[in-house]
Amino acid sequence: MSESRRVTACLLIIGDEILSGRTRDANLSYLARWLNGEGVELREARVIPDDRTVIVRTVNEVRRAFDYVFTTGGIGPTHDDITTDCVAEAFGVPIHFNAEAERELMARLIGPMTEGRRRMTRIPEGATLIRNPVSGAPGFRLGNVHVLAGIPAVMQAMLETIRGTLEGGRPVQSATLHVFAGESRIAATLLEVQERYPDVSIGSYPFGHQDRYGANLVLRSPDGARLAAATEELRQALIRDGFEPGIGEATPTPEDIV
Amino acid sequence: MSESRRVTACLLIIGDEILSGRTRDANLSYLARWLNGEGVELREARVIPDDRTVIVRTVNEVRRAFDYVFTTGGIGPTHDDITTDCVAEAFGVPIHFNAEAERELMARLIGPMTEGRRRMTRIPEGATLIRNPVSGAPGFRLGNVHVLAGIPAVMQAMLETIRGTLEGGRPVQSATLHVFAGESRIAATLLEVQERYPDVSIGSYPFGHQDRYGANLVLRSPDGARLAAATEELRQALIRDGFEPGIGEATPTPEDIV
Repeated sequence: MSESRRVTACLLIIGDEILSGRTRDANLSYLARWLNGEGVELREARVIPDDRTVIVRTVNEVRRAFDYVFTTGGIGPTHDDITTDCVAEAFGVPIHFNAEAERELMARLIGPMTEGRRRMTRIPEGATLIRNPVSGAPGFRLGNVHVLAGIPAVMQAMLETIRGTLEGGRPVQSATLHVFAGESRIAATLLEVQERYPDVSIGSYPFGHQDRYGANLVLRSPDGARLAAATEELRQALIRDGFEPGIGEATPTPEDIV
Repeated sequence: MSESRRVTACLLIIGDEILSGRTRDANLSYLARWLNGEGVELREARVIPDDRTVIVRTVNEVRRAFDYVFTTGGIGPTHDDITTDCVAEAFGVPIHFNAEAERELMARLIGPMTEGRRRMTRIPEGATLIRNPVSGAPGFRLGNVHVLAGIPAVMQAMLETIRGTLEGGRPVQSATLHVFAGESRIAATLLEVQERYPDVSIGSYPFGHQDRYGANLVLRSPDGARLAAATEELRQALIRDGFEPGIGEATPTPEDIV
């Protein structure tokens, strides 16, 4: 566990269904929070289509730019599930039917082993399996790339099986204040506190719902003492300005806050 | 309107709050559908942090790689709203207070013009304003980059003001079948039809909810006749295999489908 180094990750969300607007991704926010618990900071996410050239190129770009890469989607049994092949191609390694993957799948199988199911036991050479306690068909880790299922329940179960295997830094802690006032009225004060605490990131997230509007102010830092000091200083500064800051998040509805 | 050329777009979702898992993006799926109506295909989306270096580098990368770029987030009044500055820097142009933007903002303003509000009237040189019928503060278009608000209601209203201004191709049409059977049992038939219709993309999206599971099969093409032919051929092939394909989508719950 490094005390100071930031450990970074990038998520690749693979699937035409997300880019067409048909399906809304549900994995990014879960993975972000899970990674933070492991001391890893999600620094970028990309949604890319089921396109071999794009996937191979993107995997190669991001695996060099981030400490860890996670992919979701495209490891099922059908012809549009090409993630495994693309990750193997990106690393320049062959793919083989994997006996352990087949055992894992068979143990949870209802019905016969079909061609499509056998396809899900193909694993790139040199990869470590990531177990799938939900439906059997495993993901895998190759180098710093973790290949996970797209179905949220399966992805979440897979993450549990790799808990503790990442080399992380210190988890980022956060504190939230809210104020029922337009962002533009508190902007100067926010900037003033931000400048005194360059090591604490301060974000302002406006909300509006019916007759109530205001902003949630989220402070984030791996250093709990600095976080507490910045939070208290911001709270006092807002009181000084005549506002009544509350502790914690005001969430009229999740949809209002972006 | 080109008959054959694919017109592409990339969305940049800018904001630490998405990458920390605090907020779930609500703009991607809306923009994807809206763009399709304009004949533009969303081919990639990236979620990036409120980090000047990253935003500038990413804007410059994607504005060269795609026909259109859209950004959401980071154009509010607070210190963490740096999108306007970053886009100007990416294009190497200065920023000025913009009289038209100030008029738009003043027309909808409750309360005084503050420093934070004035910040929202700073527009890069050479940009065209994108009106904001909800809260006044405009976005802008600079080259092929459209800078929009992150709040969904505002982003959607901004899109309406630019409807018809993109040079698009033919909108992609889609048709959906569903079948209550595991994906692995229909994989071979899907591949068979996909190979006969390389110009129609066929995606398979498994769902499972309580005791019902199966897959939605989504066919997509800009050519309506080819789409109809492929859909009917897939339907007949599934009947031949002993399944009972239904027309349209089976959606036990949206969360189950990824």
